[in-house]
Amino acid sequence: MRLLVLHGPNLNLLGTREPGVYGSETLADIEARLRQVARDIGAEVEFFQTNGEGALVEAVQAARGRFEGVVINPAAYTHTSVALRDAFLAVGIPFVEVHLSNVHAREPFRRRSLLADVAVGTVCGFGPASYELGLRGLAAHLSRRS
Amino acid sequence: MRLLVLHGPNLNLLGTREPGVYGSETLADIEARLRQVARDIGAEVEFFQTNGEGALVEAVQAARGRFEGVVINPAAYTHTSVALRDAFLAVGIPFVEVHLSNVHAREPFRRRSLLADVAVGTVCGFGPASYELGLRGLAAHLSRRS
Amino acid sequence: MRLLVLHGPNLNLLGTREPGVYGSETLADIEARLRQVARDIGAEVEFFQTNGEGALVEAVQAARGRFEGVVINPAAYTHTSVALRDAFLAVGIPFVEVHLSNVHAREPFRRRSLLADVAVGTVCGFGPASYELGLRGLAAHLSRRS
Amino acid sequence: MRLLVLHGPNLNLLGTREPGVYGSETLADIEARLRQVARDIGAEVEFFQTNGEGALVEAVQAARGRFEGVVINPAAYTHTSVALRDAFLAVGIPFVEVHLSNVHAREPFRRRSLLADVAVGTVCGFGPASYELGLRGLAAHLSRRS
Amino acid sequence: MRLLVLHGPNLNLLGTREPGVYGSETLADIEARLRQVARDIGAEVEFFQTNGEGALVEAVQAARGRFEGVVINPAAYTHTSVALRDAFLAVGIPFVEVHLSNVHAREPFRRRSLLADVAVGTVCGFGPASYELGLRGLAAHLSRRS
Amino acid sequence: MRLLVLHGPNLNLLGTREPGVYGSETLADIEARLRQVARDIGAEVEFFQTNGEGALVEAVQAARGRFEGVVINPAAYTHTSVALRDAFLAVGIPFVEVHLSNVHAREPFRRRSLLADVAVGTVCGFGPASYELGLRGLAAHLSRRS
Amino acid sequence: MRLLVLHGPNLNLLGTREPGVYGSETLADIEARLRQVARDIGAEVEFFQTNGEGALVEAVQAARGRFEGVVINPAAYTHTSVALRDAFLAVGIPFVEVHLSNVHAREPFRRRSLLADVAVGTVCGFGPASYELGLRGLAAHLSRRS
Amino acid sequence: MRLLVLHGPNLNLLGTREPGVYGSETLADIEARLRQVARDIGAEVEFFQTNGEGALVEAVQAARGRFEGVVINPAAYTHTSVALRDAFLAVGIPFVEVHLSNVHAREPFRRRSLLADVAVGTVCGFGPASYELGLRGLAAHLSRRS
Amino acid sequence: MRLLVLHGPNLNLLGTREPGVYGSETLADIEARLRQVARDIGAEVEFFQTNGEGALVEAVQAARGRFEGVVINPAAYTHTSVALRDAFLAVGIPFVEVHLSNVHAREPFRRRSLLADVAVGTVCGFGPASYELGLRGLAAHLSRRS
Amino acid sequence: MRLLVLHGPNLNLLGTREPGVYGSETLADIEARLRQVARDIGAEVEFFQTNGEGALVEAVQAARGRFEGVVINPAAYTHTSVALRDAFLAVGIPFVEVHLSNVHAREPFRRRSLLADVAVGTVCGFGPASYELGLRGLAAHLSRRS
Amino acid sequence: MRLLVLHGPNLNLLGTREPGVYGSETLADIEARLRQVARDIGAEVEFFQTNGEGALVEAVQAARGRFEGVVINPAAYTHTSVALRDAFLAVGIPFVEVHLSNVHAREPFRRRSLLADVAVGTVCGFGPASYELGLRGLAAHLSRRS
Amino acid sequence: MRLLVLHGPNLNLLGTREPGVYGSETLADIEARLRQVARDIGAEVEFFQTNGEGALVEAVQAARGRFEGVVINPAAYTHTSVALRDAFLAVGIPFVEVHLSNVHAREPFRRRSLLADVAVGTVCGFGPASYELGLRGLAAHLSRRS
Repeated sequence: MRLLVLHGPNLNLLGTREPGVYGSETLADIEARLRQVARDIGAEVEFFQTNGEGALVEAVQAARGRFEGVVINPAAYTHTSVALRDAFLAVGIPFVEVHLSNVHAREPFRRRSLLADVAVGTVCGFGPASYELGLRGLAAHLSRRS
Repeated sequence: MRLLVLHGPNLNLLGTREPGVYGSETLADIEARLRQVARDIGAEVEFFQTNGEGALVEAVQAARGRFEGVVINPAAYTHTSVALRDAFLAVGIPFVEVHLSNVHAREPFRRRSLLADVAVGTVCGFGPASYELGLRGLAAHLSRRS
Repeated sequence: MRLLVLHGPNLNLLGTREPGVYGSETLADIEARLRQVARDIGAEVEFFQTNGEGALVEAVQAARGRFEGVVINPAAYTHTSVALRDAFLAVGIPFVEVHLSNVHAREPFRRRSLLADVAVGTVCGFGPASYELGLRGLAAHLSRRS
Repeated sequence: MRLLVLHGPNLNLLGTREPGVYGSETLADIEARLRQVARDIGAEVEFFQTNGEGALVEAVQAARGRFEGVVINPAAYTHTSVALRDAFLAVGIPFVEVHLSNVHAREPFRRRSLLADVAVGTVCGFGPASYELGLRGLAAHLSRRS
Repeated sequence: MRLLVLHGPNLNLLGTREPGVYGSETLADIEARLRQVARDIGAEVEFFQTNGEGALVEAVQAARGRFEGVVINPAAYTHTSVALRDAFLAVGIPFVEVHLSNVHAREPFRRRSLLADVAVGTVCGFGPASYELGLRGLAAHLSRRS
Repeated sequence: MRLLVLHGPNLNLLGTREPGVYGSETLADIEARLRQVARDIGAEVEFFQTNGEGALVEAVQAARGRFEGVVINPAAYTHTSVALRDAFLAVGIPFVEVHLSNVHAREPFRRRSLLADVAVGTVCGFGPASYELGLRGLAAHLSRRS
Repeated sequence: MRLLVLHGPNLNLLGTREPGVYGSETLADIEARLRQVARDIGAEVEFFQTNGEGALVEAVQAARGRFEGVVINPAAYTHTSVALRDAFLAVGIPFVEVHLSNVHAREPFRRRSLLADVAVGTVCGFGPASYELGLRGLAAHLSRRS
Repeated sequence: MRLLVLHGPNLNLLGTREPGVYGSETLADIEARLRQVARDIGAEVEFFQTNGEGALVEAVQAARGRFEGVVINPAAYTHTSVALRDAFLAVGIPFVEVHLSNVHAREPFRRRSLLADVAVGTVCGFGPASYELGLRGLAAHLSRRS
Repeated sequence: MRLLVLHGPNLNLLGTREPGVYGSETLADIEARLRQVARDIGAEVEFFQTNGEGALVEAVQAARGRFEGVVINPAAYTHTSVALRDAFLAVGIPFVEVHLSNVHAREPFRRRSLLADVAVGTVCGFGPASYELGLRGLAAHLSRRS
Repeated sequence: MRLLVLHGPNLNLLGTREPGVYGSETLADIEARLRQVARDIGAEVEFFQTNGEGALVEAVQAARGRFEGVVINPAAYTHTSVALRDAFLAVGIPFVEVHLSNVHAREPFRRRSLLADVAVGTVCGFGPASYELGLRGLAAHLSRRS
Repeated sequence: MRLLVLHGPNLNLLGTREPGVYGSETLADIEARLRQVARDIGAEVEFFQTNGEGALVEAVQAARGRFEGVVINPAAYTHTSVALRDAFLAVGIPFVEVHLSNVHAREPFRRRSLLADVAVGTVCGFGPASYELGLRGLAAHLSRRS
Repeated sequence: MRLLVLHGPNLNLLGTREPGVYGSETLADIEARLRQVARDIGAEVEFFQTNGEGALVEAVQAARGRFEGVVINPAAYTHTSVALRDAFLAVGIPFVEVHLSNVHAREPFRRRSLLADVAVGTVCGFGPASYELGLRGLAAHLSRRS
């Protein structure tokens, strides 16, 4: 089982960005954890981070045929990108939407996701553990289907 | 670590209720799984289901001092119960909101949660696995805090 | 053909409650009339009234397998109970929503029903006759299907 | 007791129009049934169908003094005609609003009626039986008043 | 003059619940104070607390003929219970709505009351003194009417 | 100066329709008054009433070249007819919108006019005198322009 | 018959203010015209202009017992002054709301009047003639009532 | 291939009506062009214009069995006629919605179409060419299906 | 303890203004009562009424250092004055908002207060007793703080 | 006549992406068709596809002076890109907005275009033929202007 | 170049009012600074502060012919005064709107300005420097025009 | 003091783009002016323009540690980019939002900024001078803090 983890805009700053909101772990720390979880559940995992909407769209397009599922933290594009939604609809790959912070407890515009209704499921609020839970949830979903 | 799992209205019908939406596992099946997860993470877990808003409020009140955290699938009360929100605010116990189905992909009124912004985090869309992920997420949160 | 008639909150006060709005017949008077209608159309009918949302949910759950259809006057819960909606969705039993008064001619919040779109049909504004018409309509619907 | 039954736009196509939504009975079938119900309840009944808003307005105006009540299926004009509402307000004749389909389960704009709050009551969702129930309800209402 | 004081959901936790918002007095403390006020104004007062919407509805129903007025802190049900509103409309007993905290300074959904427009008046923001003022206001209202 | 006075739907019932709202004068009474006003201000006036939206549209179309201005009481079509608005925009004839009743004091939907912003001006609330004032205002407007 | 004409804020600039919108007549010109109309209809008329909301409120209060009716061009306060509305409600004097320009054809916030529903009627869009029509309409209303 | 072209209200004035918005070609000019296009694509075409909503409804009803598709410029009824929508739903004939002007660049209410979501497609803003493009698009659609 | 009581616009008319809504006591009657209450609770009280928003703002500004708290019936300015809110925020003096009538049972715009969320608390609906309760509540609040 | 055809995000996947919605033709197929249409109408045509908002903006900027008009399928950016709108406003080049699917029949957010009101016109719902019709419409528009 | 600086309600309290929001400089301090800036840019400047809406309106009216431009901090009236907007429209004098605090970061109602769209420009959030920047911006605007 | 000036999408076209709205100065002209202002206030200034959202995000990220503050004209991304907001929140660098045109006087969607509430302040409407004022305001803010 090959899985892709996508990180949206500003996540490259993790660990330094608003630690009160996002914690002090870096993206590298999170990816290390996720590799461990992947090993536990018998999956391979790759990572990609970008700040560009178009680049994120292309990463989703490129995932077709190469990965069985995607865990994505779309960050700011969660709320503004129809293009990302369309990319997922186009490639038809199952994906899980994750957020480090509890988006329901922040600005009202963060409550609206343009992706959530076409995702398998969503996880938010657990900090870096959101990614782990999302990865486990995705794997469970893919196993159940096969 | 003692944890409480609360099931809201109509979850007693699980396995028979709209299987297209909620799957065919029963509540007992889910609880069995959760006991297994609890063992894995070194926690004890108890369960309670009720169809009454007041009864759910009282279960939350009674959790204070007896449990370190709560996983709740508030079902229909997610969208309508300020009383349940107030109960959690009153007892100050960390909790995680879980849903079997992807609430973002259903009727618009299911997108509004009166609990999510005061929860640790939320998990939805993974079927029975939502509970498992929620339990793991809650345990991770409690460990991180202690 | 076995049918259940459910009365929601405050209907136990019927005959004394706001007679200008609801008329002077009591619930017992209505039930007597409905028994007569049931006889006319060759059906058996049972009744249940409760002021509790959870109790109403459980009455719907318990109807499964025991009744072929439900006539419900959900009263105040029409406008606030997702749990009741979920109960009907879960048991999959055909039901008709009735109201004594014309809900369209009252406070704006009474125009919104959380049940109507999953009901067979609705009847409102005819006083106690709303129940009779609802019962006839339900019977006609069930006959047409069988 | 003389009663008028009015059919709004497109109801002349009944039986051929979207049978999945409206069933296969024609308007003539329905009128035959309604004549039978009228006989049962000791009433006389007349019928009129038109596709024009102005013509419907004039039919309501002409009913004054000739009929004691009206059953109307305003179809599309339910949602758009203030003129029809004004006609009923002007002639002051009691009327019942009926719909074949469950308008609550269709497009959102079908949930708004410009007539319902000035009607005696409403019936929807029972197919042709909606007319029958509406006729019975109207007769009951008129009897109760006299 | 016999008066009833009703406490809604979670008020049994008073004194321990969010002291920053609700203060440190318990419900028993408040009731002691209210007995004193009642004596001052020559009234008798009884108390009832419940977390259930249905139970609160029934307490209002039962007040008819036994009490001349009600002071109610409907807590969370202020914002969600049409059933409670209907109960007050049905029994026609004068009542006053009170809140410990200033509901206008909290979450937006706490600004909407389903009871206030059918109450005699409202008092909020004075902590336990809200009850006292509500009781005095109710007594003044009843005196003025008799 | 030749002027046209148009009466929309249900105005043929004037004098009998909701006298509490619209007064007891008939359309003929109003037209007699308006002929008198026309004589006073040196104008000729013609009248047309219809209940049909299309017929009203065609009356506006036909006014081009025959009349210098129009006084219209669009009644119900005020709030629903884009076609009538388009007719006035197409023929480019100055017109005044009048209402017998004070539309601001009635149902909220009567506050929205699809014509008012393309009219010369509006008059409402003076009963039959609204027509007279509208006619005078139109004449003043036309005089000022020429 | 004694009538008062009130001019709201910025009307003292009339004739110089946005002539494209309000025309080139001054307030004195308008008042001269209105005196003429008053003579024609056998009324006495007085005038008052102020830019202050409170002063306008007091002018309305002072009108009680001294005038039988008021014509008011509330200008900007039309859309923002509840105090002015309350003053008219308090003194119970019949009044007519007039506007020089067609308020429906300007900024959206000018479509909302806090006075119109408690006025006898409204006139707008006829330039200075709006005042004349309003005065005639008020006189007609007062005559009809006496 | 037989196709019907329907013109809604006020289009009979084309060429004279608001030339700045709609251009100077008459309906006859447009129909001549469309006949030429029809010849090019091997189709027969008929035309009908009416200002009445009911008449338009009936033209759609009558098209069933006589035409394979409809090009309609519903003009003002685009935004207000549920009856026209229902007629198309009832007869199930493929149709294309066209507009001469760019409806997106005009009043906000012209942005809402009650037909567009049940049409094959829409064309707007090209003046008379909108009809031609609509006719070609409809023909292409019908060819693709057969 | 020195307290100021402020009366907003139109309250000078009290006793004569809409007695059905506001009762027949005059402002002088109310002030006499309040002096009595002040004596009971060991406070001094002064009064000020004005119809001007600016004057009310200045009364609040002037209260700083001279009074320990303010009871204000802002009347119409409750709903429209940001300036009054800003004055209270600027001087930082504790205040209580009172209303004679039950503002929740009147026009919808009276439900919105620009002051309530920065007040200590609010009292409404008890007629003149609202002032008394507000004064007692303010005194209790100030005592509790000192 | 030189024309540019721009394809927005995810259109590179055409033919494989949601064939139920978008059909099975590839972008290359469409471009071949459009070259044929261009030849027919005596125009030259170039193509550009990108998934990036900024890249699309720059393509529009670069079109100035090189092309006389643009046909654009902005895809997801239709609904979210003010930058694209600004680019068209800045270069002032006439453009036509096209969509393969009927955007009116999909998610509500697809009904809002940030480009349509500044376009010449729009075409949607005809599959690949939408591009052809758009190209023809643009050419007709440009011919009419020159 | 003669310029007027207007200060709206509560700005007389500056330096003492909510220092956390507005800083500790007084209005006199700000005016001293502005005199210095005026000297630098070769302008004369006068100042006026008032708490009254009507007084502010009159200050704007009086500026006509005496000043070439106005810098105004309308404070609370920014959000509520149509009269002030009308005054600026009437006198046609260029003005700049300034705010000490960042109004976008405060209560939602502070985001709406009734003046901004008719101002030259706006400056907010820089504390007393907002006035200076506004003055410079106004001077630059006036120079550019002359 | 080192400051960065960022220009968003389409600003590279300045001087040629919609001169009626944006003036005829080019970006190079503006930058020359800003260098002069920077010299005056003893600051160094650098510039960057891009049409890409992601590139703008990265420019903000790269500013951390290299610049003490940012002046940004986010142009179209003002209204659509949560990613840009998040970048500023992440790096915590003070910034000022500027606009050449008065955004309050244009399309309604330009009134909403996703950045303004987290900026130091905003300046708009002064043409190129907006940048200068923004730069001065930023410098003043940074000086005050140090």
